[in-house]
Amino acid sequence: MTRALYLEDGKLELRKIPAPTPAPGEALVRVTLAGVCDTDLQLRAGYMDFTGVPGHEFVGIVEEAEDQSLIGQRVVGEINAACGDCERCRRGLGRHCATRSVLGILGRRGAHGELLTLPERNLHCVPPGVTNEQAVFAEPLAAACEILEQIHIRPDDRVVVLGDGKLGLLIAQVLALTGCELHLVGRHESKLALLKSRGVKAERVAPGESSQLPDAWADVAVECSGSSSGFAAARRLLRPRGSLVLKSTMKDSPEIWLAGIIIDEIRLIGSRCGPFGAALRLLERGLIDVAPLVAARLPLGPGAYELAAQRGVLKVLMELDQI
Amino acid sequence: MTRALYLEDGKLELRKIPAPTPAPGEALVRVTLAGVCDTDLQLRAGYMDFTGVPGHEFVGIVEEAEDQSLIGQRVVGEINAACGDCERCRRGLGRHCATRSVLGILGRRGAHGELLTLPERNLHCVPPGVTNEQAVFAEPLAAACEILEQIHIRPDDRVVVLGDGKLGLLIAQVLALTGCELHLVGRHESKLALLKSRGVKAERVAPGESSQLPDAWADVAVECSGSSSGFAAARRLLRPRGSLVLKSTMKDSPEIWLAGIIIDEIRLIGSRCGPFGAALRLLERGLIDVAPLVAARLPLGPGAYELAAQRGVLKVLMELDQI
Repeated sequence: MTRALYLEDGKLELRKIPAPTPAPGEALVRVTLAGVCDTDLQLRAGYMDFTGVPGHEFVGIVEEAEDQSLIGQRVVGEINAACGDCERCRRGLGRHCATRSVLGILGRRGAHGELLTLPERNLHCVPPGVTNEQAVFAEPLAAACEILEQIHIRPDDRVVVLGDGKLGLLIAQVLALTGCELHLVGRHESKLALLKSRGVKAERVAPGESSQLPDAWADVAVECSGSSSGFAAARRLLRPRGSLVLKSTMKDSPEIWLAGIIIDEIRLIGSRCGPFGAALRLLERGLIDVAPLVAARLPLGPGAYELAAQRGVLKVLMELDQI
Repeated sequence: MTRALYLEDGKLELRKIPAPTPAPGEALVRVTLAGVCDTDLQLRAGYMDFTGVPGHEFVGIVEEAEDQSLIGQRVVGEINAACGDCERCRRGLGRHCATRSVLGILGRRGAHGELLTLPERNLHCVPPGVTNEQAVFAEPLAAACEILEQIHIRPDDRVVVLGDGKLGLLIAQVLALTGCELHLVGRHESKLALLKSRGVKAERVAPGESSQLPDAWADVAVECSGSSSGFAAARRLLRPRGSLVLKSTMKDSPEIWLAGIIIDEIRLIGSRCGPFGAALRLLERGLIDVAPLVAARLPLGPGAYELAAQRGVLKVLMELDQI
């Protein structure tokens, strides 16, 4: 038996449950440190009708694997477990495999427990210079890097990031590396300060207010506020032929004027999971600072979710080796 | 005085009006042949609150110009007249200049009259081997080429075009040149036959029916049916990370599930006017067959609009040298 957070009928509790058994090709990983993501909070609120162990941000140690060289390695893991055999997988679209399971989100026990399983090909060894606290950010940092997999941001582009949550702060750090003219718009002075100290222009906008940036200022707008008002601001700030990257599911449904999208030749780009290799390289090179994003380190338990759900709280980590 | 179709309060009539006077940098062009576009029909129905001479598809002869070498030349013309001086113009976004006028659409007398003016830099000389009937298609053909300015269609991509109107048939011809696997979906057997004879797979789908293509078949879907059902079909047929090109303003408002756009990492791309140079080169090389798209050649008059508005009728041309 092993301990895990278990979500059932909207209730999250610490339980003792049987240890997972790796399927062929899978490794068994003992989780060291795990992060609470907004998606986890949404699952708790009923999203995806998820029952089981949530969690998909983790770093851990491989206990069992077919590939003996993996055993004892410190790893992070890509969360989409693809079949590896269908047409999408063969075309390099494994993260979109139609029969995929997703760690702690869809059909696969997650990282908010002592043990998890993942296909060995999903695992990435963590470089020695990267701490556990850094490595646990590999998953959201990879999602930030996904933007640069999808569009070319030029060093002289003007980019606006809407939203100063955990993901917005990672995205702003990643995009700052391109040299682009970068403007972060958010609600919280303390969060914005994290980026200001790195030379990024950051602007606090109160609810109902609008950014001071002129209309059509940006070549690229990244919406990660998850709100209709963020979408509307992104659209207003975008120049004709600009790219609007959607990183966050909206809580409400923004109105989209399609004729305007056509007249201004706007690109709307949905963006989800990204490349772990790039995320780990950026961490190893010391180019991304995650320390200020950590709000607290708590033991495994529902209390971590309670804290993470509080307004304005950044990343809450759970220490699974502290149980 | 010169003859022109004049639109006022939803009524289109042939009038005698003063000849236009070219502004500095503009040429005066005598129109030889002009096309009726769906946008013209929409203007007549009240779109853009347009009053004046509509029309933006034409070929003509330059009568006056500052650049003497232009006089007597047979030309077509880009429809967006930009200031040439603002930041957008300096960044190569002249077609999106915020203070632009648009031939026969916005603040500029159009091509459905004997004489028009355009900035000299908007004009393109028609190569000798291109007939007037071909040249008058330069504008919509450029709009078809715009898709390839915006996205890279690979020779082995699967592409579906929704809509067998004039623009859809031009787009299908242009995209067929890439070698891509191309599937045209439309409502009219006779129109689809035009593309079938060029080796493009074309499928007739009755209203309320769905394409026989499997879900997520296409790498690229081009919506040019201008209907919500076309948009829904494009979305269904698109694979994850695929591109959905919007070429036609919708008559109704399709519902867009943004979470699905994010999960599947779809690109929505608005697409409007395109490169005339490429359009003329394709015509000169004999790679685009416009003859089957011509429904009729009529004299200048409201009758051309009446015919063009009939269901299933393709391009109606007006012969201005026949008045």
